[in-house]
Amino acid sequence: MTTPSGYTYDADLPASPVSTRDLQELLASVMWSEDDAVALRRAGDILTPKTHEILDVWYGFVGSTPHLVSVFAGKGGQPDAGYLEAVRGRFERWIVDLCTRDFDEHWLAYQQEIARRHTTKKNETDHVDSPSRHVPLRHLIALLVPVTVTVRPFLEQGGDDAATVDAMHTAWQKAVTLTVALWSQPYSPELW
Amino acid sequence: MTTPSGYTYDADLPASPVSTRDLQELLASVMWSEDDAVALRRAGDILTPKTHEILDVWYGFVGSTPHLVSVFAGKGGQPDAGYLEAVRGRFERWIVDLCTRDFDEHWLAYQQEIARRHTTKKNETDHVDSPSRHVPLRHLIALLVPVTVTVRPFLEQGGDDAATVDAMHTAWQKAVTLTVALWSQPYSPELW
Repeated sequence: MTTPSGYTYDADLPASPVSTRDLQELLASVMWSEDDAVALRRAGDILTPKTHEILDVWYGFVGSTPHLVSVFAGKGGQPDAGYLEAVRGRFERWIVDLCTRDFDEHWLAYQQEIARRHTTKKNETDHVDSPSRHVPLRHLIALLVPVTVTVRPFLEQGGDDAATVDAMHTAWQKAVTLTVALWSQPYSPELW
Repeated sequence: MTTPSGYTYDADLPASPVSTRDLQELLASVMWSEDDAVALRRAGDILTPKTHEILDVWYGFVGSTPHLVSVFAGKGGQPDAGYLEAVRGRFERWIVDLCTRDFDEHWLAYQQEIARRHTTKKNETDHVDSPSRHVPLRHLIALLVPVTVTVRPFLEQGGDDAATVDAMHTAWQKAVTLTVALWSQPYSPELW
């Protein structure tokens, strides 16, 4: 897998304001268990070779939904193809990272970097002069549904029994909800 | 069904800052469809007589998770039984409302009232002198998981076929995600 443009997971990142204790509490809030950790790793086996296909589905949805694709507007207000493509590469990689990385301090630091890229430093990484200055919080939360629902058919392609597919899907839902909770930090530091 | 303490759905509420256009966009973001509307009504038939049992499950989880129950702390820092009980009544009613009400301007106004009760006017409705001044945004988002996952066994008790249970569960997930997206507004009005 080539390194996507602007992907800096392995860089020397500033520590997240989110503590490992905050993380443990969030894991409790999403009912995270050891079984989920196992199921998410198995999901990673299945999803890693399919990230391009998954992004075809997600970008098909975003591209056909004007208020969502507007986040990718370039200077003239039309979708910026280079911006879309750069984000796509990192989005694919996010699927792999979510399923395969340990949820540790470095992982927290990169989640905060992603959170900044949705808010205070949106457009910076890809050098885009976009009228969209942040990803709206409400849609970040709402997109939990498509990102959960559309992954199930891919999980079903792994040849696992129905109970294992259910377990992988639930673990995926918990993990994506956890990341959106983490990404919400810069939107409301005082009430987070 | 008796009217819970502090439940003001039928009051003359201030209009929500969230427009019906915002609502339509959010419905698109959660992939809402006519099938979901039908499935959610059917879910309401099943869940309405079970709200007390569902809250037993949710409060069992919250009560055994210190950072969640701390939201219900009274003056001395210990959980306030009267506060827990008053919120419980409205929480039960929220299940019914979510499944049975039309998503219209008045519904939006009450979602905003709920959002204020999590933030700017927390504790006011129940006259509690609590050290907890807001529901943390991160846990509001994270609780989407337990509120989704734990409802499925109840939906399965309605005697519907597996496809209908799946459809009801997906509609429920979409609806609860929609409400959390709406409830996030006072946390970040500028970036919402």
